[in-house]
Amino acid sequence: MRTQVAIVGAGPSGLLLGHLLRQAGIACVVVERQTPDYVLSRIRAGVLETVTTDLMARLGLDGRMNAEGMIEEGFNLADGERLIRIDVKALTGKHVMVYGQTELTRDLMAAAPDRGLDIVYAASDVALHGLESDAPWISFQQGGEACRIDADFIAGCDGFHGPSRKAIPAERTREYERVYPFGWLGILADVPPCHPELIYSNGPRGFALASMRSPTRSRYYIQVPLTERIEDWPEDRLWDELALRFDGISERGVRRGPALEISIAPLRSYVFETMRHGRLFLAGDSAHIVPPTGAKGLNLAASDVAYLSDALIAHYRGGEDRALDAYQQTALARIWKAERFSWQLTKLMHRFPEDGAFEHRMQIAELDYVAQSKAMQTAIAENYVGLPL
Amino acid sequence: MRTQVAIVGAGPSGLLLGHLLRQAGIACVVVERQTPDYVLSRIRAGVLETVTTDLMARLGLDGRMNAEGMIEEGFNLADGERLIRIDVKALTGKHVMVYGQTELTRDLMAAAPDRGLDIVYAASDVALHGLESDAPWISFQQGGEACRIDADFIAGCDGFHGPSRKAIPAERTREYERVYPFGWLGILADVPPCHPELIYSNGPRGFALASMRSPTRSRYYIQVPLTERIEDWPEDRLWDELALRFDGISERGVRRGPALEISIAPLRSYVFETMRHGRLFLAGDSAHIVPPTGAKGLNLAASDVAYLSDALIAHYRGGEDRALDAYQQTALARIWKAERFSWQLTKLMHRFPEDGAFEHRMQIAELDYVAQSKAMQTAIAENYVGLPL
Repeated sequence: MRTQVAIVGAGPSGLLLGHLLRQAGIACVVVERQTPDYVLSRIRAGVLETVTTDLMARLGLDGRMNAEGMIEEGFNLADGERLIRIDVKALTGKHVMVYGQTELTRDLMAAAPDRGLDIVYAASDVALHGLESDAPWISFQQGGEACRIDADFIAGCDGFHGPSRKAIPAERTREYERVYPFGWLGILADVPPCHPELIYSNGPRGFALASMRSPTRSRYYIQVPLTERIEDWPEDRLWDELALRFDGISERGVRRGPALEISIAPLRSYVFETMRHGRLFLAGDSAHIVPPTGAKGLNLAASDVAYLSDALIAHYRGGEDRALDAYQQTALARIWKAERFSWQLTKLMHRFPEDGAFEHRMQIAELDYVAQSKAMQTAIAENYVGLPL
Repeated sequence: MRTQVAIVGAGPSGLLLGHLLRQAGIACVVVERQTPDYVLSRIRAGVLETVTTDLMARLGLDGRMNAEGMIEEGFNLADGERLIRIDVKALTGKHVMVYGQTELTRDLMAAAPDRGLDIVYAASDVALHGLESDAPWISFQQGGEACRIDADFIAGCDGFHGPSRKAIPAERTREYERVYPFGWLGILADVPPCHPELIYSNGPRGFALASMRSPTRSRYYIQVPLTERIEDWPEDRLWDELALRFDGISERGVRRGPALEISIAPLRSYVFETMRHGRLFLAGDSAHIVPPTGAKGLNLAASDVAYLSDALIAHYRGGEDRALDAYQQTALARIWKAERFSWQLTKLMHRFPEDGAFEHRMQIAELDYVAQSKAMQTAIAENYVGLPL
């Protein structure tokens, strides 16, 4: 098979990129290792910046999102006792949209046939070839058959564990990484959220996040040591802990319900500083990971895709390659700032085992300062809604 | 001898407090371990917030300061190549004043006789007694004689190494401390500064600060490992290093001249969380230390003194003790925020041996973000000029 752009990975980055290219009349194929059901079963982020909702609008695929998503005009930081509301709308004129990554992926998948976006699911052993030539290609196995797609360009949208990043020779790359000494234990349940807006809390019992996916679906997290196992957390224990952390500061208190999902996720900051190698371009989690604090991951993938799709469209429209050549630099400028925000919010809101009493007082002082400073609230809000493209 | 307020220490805190109390007709005596010449030979801070200049104005002792001090409407952060100007005046409507702590101390000393402020110099073995009684007193030796001053209150303005803080029983106190893994090697010289405003630089060769005390007196610092000794730094080597760090980014480049002083100072964050014990009140460095980044030390001492003098004056005017009882809480709220700013600016602008490549890129990303964000510049500026009392 031959196409113009071969896209590895049918997560939100790959699907968004595919749709944007199709909209411009560019031929592309998305190759995904998993089945559609598996992709849709992954519970991920749920707070969309304008950069992301704008892409859905540009594709004309924002109908369900606008109907079912929740516009959030603010969120809260808490020191355990006090809510510090960041009035995002008043401070920046912008808002974010609560709409699950799963729902966004579902919308993109559903529209694929109509838009002529081919997606090959359950493709195993995906490998990238000829990246430094003018004729790159990918190989994979499907249903026991060896397949090959030839393309002009390959887009690596295959996440942190995919083959694309690994296809770049190590001597051409540099990795930056910070692993955090804790994880997030999360629960998803069909109960109304305890508060109308997100609450990030750094209280005496440690970090916790009260979030939601819809007015009837809650998403909660607490910080746990990396040694903790899900078996240590029967649902009741987790609900008890969440009640202790949120009942005193939230509007409605924590409602309990059967868990749709419970999981522990590690926190990591990671930047891979080669986003282009020959005819391969990386976008999203394949090139960078942020800790979930601040909900930047999906939005950063969307901004990569915004840059990359514009650059590829410019190439095919007029043979103009300046944007393609600048892609890595353009994307990284925004990535590093989002990495900084996620890292700083993570440091502010979590208890770090290596921190002493002084560092903890610095967290309290910073929250006190945020509570009184409109300038600092504005700085937080402008990062939260996403820095300009 | 008997007085109303016995003040330990004739640095800027003790002298400011003494003058403010005298202005309100309260009897006080300042007891200082060193000679006046020694006190004036200590080279210290040189950037005054409005909280400090306002106290000098209230005392009517701001004549020379206004004539000789330099109003600074901005300062600069640099990443080695680029100056990021923080336009303090435009962002906050305020400014700071460059005027050496030594000069301020000189003005306060010179006015003492006229204002009836008694200062006992060269008082050794100062000790505090009866702090939990209604009749506290201090003892000391002077010229071979044992002396005693009885008072209603004792103000501990005797710095980090003085006896006041140590007079508080350890079980009543809590210390918070962070020692930094480097020091500041400083040089003072009568040469015009390289730039009209301060430059804090975090360049490839490490942290450096270009500062000044007057249009003809420069004060420079570079970050050095704590193992470094002054003997390792002949003046030429230090000037060469400063030229490398500032010639490329400053308006005039580094001018060289004979050193008036060269010294290495360690950097420390420290807060002692008992500022009142019975009849003893601590103010300034006796209760807290900030790293010099951001020039908060003297200004924080001045804000302590502003709170404490008002509280003591209220006590003597109408027997109203609410402000005295609230002193520790009021002072600490401001102290912790200044500690936070100094700590954060220190972390942003220095190379930490324990930091890896990721943390260094976080510094670069933060400087990039500061360069583009008016909100973040405002947050920095409002801390730099001093948060409201």
